[in-house]
Amino acid sequence: MLRWLTAGESHGPELVAILEGLPAGVPVTAELVQADLQRRKLGYGRGARMKFEQDELHLSGGVRHGVSMGSPVAIRVGNTEWPKWQDVMSPEPVDPSVLQTARGAALTRPRPGHADLVGMQKYGFDEARPVLERASARETAARVALGAVAKSFLGELGIRLVSHTLAIGPVEVPEGAALPTPDDVAALDADPLRCFDAATSALMVAEVDDAHDTGDTLGGVVEVLAYGVPPGLGGYAQWDRRLDARLAEAIMSIQAIKGVEVGDGFRTARRRGSQAHDELVELDGVITRLSDRAGGTEGGMSTGTLLRVRAGMKPIATVPHALRTVDVATGERPRRTISAPTSARCRRPEWSPRRWS
Amino acid sequence: MLRWLTAGESHGPELVAILEGLPAGVPVTAELVQADLQRRKLGYGRGARMKFEQDELHLSGGVRHGVSMGSPVAIRVGNTEWPKWQDVMSPEPVDPSVLQTARGAALTRPRPGHADLVGMQKYGFDEARPVLERASARETAARVALGAVAKSFLGELGIRLVSHTLAIGPVEVPEGAALPTPDDVAALDADPLRCFDAATSALMVAEVDDAHDTGDTLGGVVEVLAYGVPPGLGGYAQWDRRLDARLAEAIMSIQAIKGVEVGDGFRTARRRGSQAHDELVELDGVITRLSDRAGGTEGGMSTGTLLRVRAGMKPIATVPHALRTVDVATGERPRRTISAPTSARCRRPEWSPRRWS
Amino acid sequence: MLRWLTAGESHGPELVAILEGLPAGVPVTAELVQADLQRRKLGYGRGARMKFEQDELHLSGGVRHGVSMGSPVAIRVGNTEWPKWQDVMSPEPVDPSVLQTARGAALTRPRPGHADLVGMQKYGFDEARPVLERASARETAARVALGAVAKSFLGELGIRLVSHTLAIGPVEVPEGAALPTPDDVAALDADPLRCFDAATSALMVAEVDDAHDTGDTLGGVVEVLAYGVPPGLGGYAQWDRRLDARLAEAIMSIQAIKGVEVGDGFRTARRRGSQAHDELVELDGVITRLSDRAGGTEGGMSTGTLLRVRAGMKPIATVPHALRTVDVATGERPRRTISAPTSARCRRPEWSPRRWS
Amino acid sequence: MLRWLTAGESHGPELVAILEGLPAGVPVTAELVQADLQRRKLGYGRGARMKFEQDELHLSGGVRHGVSMGSPVAIRVGNTEWPKWQDVMSPEPVDPSVLQTARGAALTRPRPGHADLVGMQKYGFDEARPVLERASARETAARVALGAVAKSFLGELGIRLVSHTLAIGPVEVPEGAALPTPDDVAALDADPLRCFDAATSALMVAEVDDAHDTGDTLGGVVEVLAYGVPPGLGGYAQWDRRLDARLAEAIMSIQAIKGVEVGDGFRTARRRGSQAHDELVELDGVITRLSDRAGGTEGGMSTGTLLRVRAGMKPIATVPHALRTVDVATGERPRRTISAPTSARCRRPEWSPRRWS
Repeated sequence: MLRWLTAGESHGPELVAILEGLPAGVPVTAELVQADLQRRKLGYGRGARMKFEQDELHLSGGVRHGVSMGSPVAIRVGNTEWPKWQDVMSPEPVDPSVLQTARGAALTRPRPGHADLVGMQKYGFDEARPVLERASARETAARVALGAVAKSFLGELGIRLVSHTLAIGPVEVPEGAALPTPDDVAALDADPLRCFDAATSALMVAEVDDAHDTGDTLGGVVEVLAYGVPPGLGGYAQWDRRLDARLAEAIMSIQAIKGVEVGDGFRTARRRGSQAHDELVELDGVITRLSDRAGGTEGGMSTGTLLRVRAGMKPIATVPHALRTVDVATGERPRRTISAPTSARCRRPEWSPRRWS
Repeated sequence: MLRWLTAGESHGPELVAILEGLPAGVPVTAELVQADLQRRKLGYGRGARMKFEQDELHLSGGVRHGVSMGSPVAIRVGNTEWPKWQDVMSPEPVDPSVLQTARGAALTRPRPGHADLVGMQKYGFDEARPVLERASARETAARVALGAVAKSFLGELGIRLVSHTLAIGPVEVPEGAALPTPDDVAALDADPLRCFDAATSALMVAEVDDAHDTGDTLGGVVEVLAYGVPPGLGGYAQWDRRLDARLAEAIMSIQAIKGVEVGDGFRTARRRGSQAHDELVELDGVITRLSDRAGGTEGGMSTGTLLRVRAGMKPIATVPHALRTVDVATGERPRRTISAPTSARCRRPEWSPRRWS
Repeated sequence: MLRWLTAGESHGPELVAILEGLPAGVPVTAELVQADLQRRKLGYGRGARMKFEQDELHLSGGVRHGVSMGSPVAIRVGNTEWPKWQDVMSPEPVDPSVLQTARGAALTRPRPGHADLVGMQKYGFDEARPVLERASARETAARVALGAVAKSFLGELGIRLVSHTLAIGPVEVPEGAALPTPDDVAALDADPLRCFDAATSALMVAEVDDAHDTGDTLGGVVEVLAYGVPPGLGGYAQWDRRLDARLAEAIMSIQAIKGVEVGDGFRTARRRGSQAHDELVELDGVITRLSDRAGGTEGGMSTGTLLRVRAGMKPIATVPHALRTVDVATGERPRRTISAPTSARCRRPEWSPRRWS
Repeated sequence: MLRWLTAGESHGPELVAILEGLPAGVPVTAELVQADLQRRKLGYGRGARMKFEQDELHLSGGVRHGVSMGSPVAIRVGNTEWPKWQDVMSPEPVDPSVLQTARGAALTRPRPGHADLVGMQKYGFDEARPVLERASARETAARVALGAVAKSFLGELGIRLVSHTLAIGPVEVPEGAALPTPDDVAALDADPLRCFDAATSALMVAEVDDAHDTGDTLGGVVEVLAYGVPPGLGGYAQWDRRLDARLAEAIMSIQAIKGVEVGDGFRTARRRGSQAHDELVELDGVITRLSDRAGGTEGGMSTGTLLRVRAGMKPIATVPHALRTVDVATGERPRRTISAPTSARCRRPEWSPRRWS
């Protein structure tokens, strides 16, 4: 059983992540993790923050001479912008006078579509800073780092991953389009939106440009494919042993995800039974399936065919042309958000399919 | 923290369920649980098995004089058909000769769309009986029983649930249709398909009849609504604290579910940011939201508005006009399934929206 | 990973237990489980209740034709005394008039040394009945039943268990006495106190008689030995992976246990380092240990030598010659306890070393 | 629910710890944590390593302006000796030639009483370095750091802790000696062995000196006292809800602990029932207990009286006058251990009662 925890705030000194339960002998290097952190920043229409933030990577534990030791893997991702934030986010008490800056001001205008207001209610905060610092999608950098380690582990077992963008806003890859394989990762990374269908990719770029021009943002759909998964992972014996259930939890736990599908998902719900399942046939003496409508799970177990899981992400909530909110301190009703200066200039979709691949 | 486990096979003597962590003082009676077990059997186009199987209910522990005691709640749901199955499913060794019956025959033709084949591979079984007995949707009766207890607990906290059918196959409730409230449960139970929109319900009945006539089955989409949820349940601090992630796991763990959405789910992924979130406004001195696109969660926490979660269910895999399979013992390639006699005659959608409400 | 939950009250209709995560193919029969339930009742100086209570055993799930199926194992232990208690412990509301009996009276005199008072405080009960019903050591019958299944599983892996009594009150087996092996279980079961040292056993019998004559009760120390444990179970990588830590939790969780030792335990703390560890030597080309002071764990892992764990149990708190208490309803200060009639006559040590073996 | 993980190796760049589930508003500063890390190093007869190793503390997450934010608390404890170890323990692959040093040599002589041999067997290592780096008691520095945070949280709830040494080798505090209170922590810290009984402390110092002179090491017994614990923490409803069981797990998980007692522990097992429990009496209208033999738990719940837990620690296994072992590479049978140079000079008991207080 693998367990993992992350810690750290968006503008804090660093993110910290621990992965526990990894066997010994898995190849892990800073280069391997850094590569995925770089890929996390790809994507047409990214906010400016992605560009100047550098991820300073430290392998703090669990790895020696390029392989895991069986002890917990600890990774830190330093924040190169920390010097600008060291008063605002200081763990130690600070003199209130040093907070008399734009960065230090109390964030009293909770942003719609963010955790701000509920977090303040939950913890009794009178401003949103402590909430947005942790609820931020910056935390996914820690997940990507651990995910790179997990991906290396899967690789040792012959399991290879690839993800690709299926939709940006209303622009979708046509049903039945070819699926990428792990050998296509480099090509996907070279596509502006990591879309495997060139014609759709061009339409997606146009959609991003249009959203940009109208001061708006976009969401989308991503699909993760796992090749080489053996049959029998997960189980039907108890509700929380099911592989599909655990994948659904993991994926819905990513910031901004609002929907999860395994295989054909909701489309399967529209089909008739005779068209919805994967028939069993014998080919060269092996019982196999000719289709993968189920997405590689039956009865909560991997079937040995291609595992396919999709996530639907809402558009970034920090919309330039502004949503209504209320200032909890003054009662003002501004059409502006409380975003910190760096990300407030972000005008394009904060959509990051590369979180998994 | 509540924990729960279920046990028991589809044709075994009984299902057993334990719910651990329930506080003292929650109203629990056999009548309350039995009512939900009865509701589980409603629905137009049900298989025959639902009709003659009775659920013999026993409250074995945790409840005294109509209220919970803080100790674990144990519920048994007896199987009235057990006498017919007591040899085939006997926990004790039996003489092989007593298995020379239709019921006792080895099930060597794994059914497509079921756990049969993978379960056999996982455990090394040479027939599917031990797999299908536990992977069966009959297990949901145990969940419904515990769910009735959980619903009573939520009721004590002012949280009330209602579920309704949004789609049967391609027939969907129109977007923007009115949502039911907990006061509508009786009316929904009276509808053949628990659809809150009368016109759509009629179309759904026609769709079920058509599927029946063509020897086919149907899936669909259900939505669960929770009224009265306070803000702040769940949390953004760690991935597995998120309420939406935990709901996604719980719902995807139900047999045949292939997709989960919170709020507007995948539709939100198609919208632009300016149309995708719930603005914050002040009404009578209270900061509130005018819409519920997010489905009642932000940052992995309940917002205090209506909680909405959807599940997409695949059509029942036991399709009368038959899917291809392979006999693992003989190599035959029958177009018949291995279903036990009782459920093999089931010709209509095994669709049970009443699992939650 | 194995998980288990138990449910059920001391005078309820039955105890219920679920064991989740057991592989398929483990031999399990009612006879095997019943044998250990019978052994649980052995022991010189037992209370009367043990004699007339029969354990009606039901294998409700997870087992078919004498072997486990990989699905959860569910066991029920029926209470043959239930008819006498069906009003007092009815899950359904009852008319208060039927509780106007000795059994039905509110238990307002919390017993010292029991969970009674704290349980009432924790849950706000005005009597101890709901507390003592679940806090009762009767619950160990459910653990013994699951333990019999676990023991069968271990047996398949070549691991065999034996337990024996090391002390009854101040009467202790001399240090350095021979240890029993699994082949000695029948002989131990035949000893009045399951002591492997005949001379000490005779002294223990005398001690029990003396306690009986003075209206008092006794505790003691038991040791569990596991033969055939392979090296490397458990781990040092994280605190809760340690085998010794998990054993300590499991054993301290048994009612009335107040101390746990692995290997020589507290005696090791008195030794000097040169005498406290197990040296490594090579015998016939194999690196091995000549002693087992550590009790078979190093660094939180099994070493492959004999695993030895001890538990210290306090004397039964229902002392005939009575401890002081206070009546929470009347303020009276009786020197009597609130025990139910059946167990109040119990005059001898409720000491059950056979819980594990 | 609080969860925590630690990571990091003994001679790695740093230890990393994450504590998850802490509420907002708990006072946390580097000074508060550093103070306990300093106290960890106190103690007569410490190894040299304790003296020159500095703990460089970093609060990486979860704390802002001196209080917790509800997000996970992350703490790093840097290793000032890292420059000497950066090749030997490099996470990145290194050229084998740089390991041709005393520090870099393969550790092929597993030390008795350590995790070395079993760890090598478990993971298939051909030397002990990857094992001893994580199995090391250095990891307790990470626990102490998180423990300081937990202690602050308990302090907010009115719960105060103090620990003291009950025994060093065979030298024990007399039964019935006075117990320290939290106000005695400073005085205890000033005692060479954190013993609250001055006469015993002097004997303990003599015992340490004698062990030193004979090239030997010592273990001992420590007791942790928690004042102000409210009644009702933990529960009897399920085995793993019990407070005593969870404490036993936590304490047995500490390196070198071989025994755990709650309250009078094994001594209670020797008493008769009439002398073993805490009678209930009414004082000024409040039901209370006149003794604390149970150590503050009944039925797995805190009683509201003083919580007392003891741990028995084995002597440090790195004994100067040497235990037998076998060189796994050469088959040599040296009477020397494989300890790294820094700790091999450690000649006195590595006994650290200050892990908890």
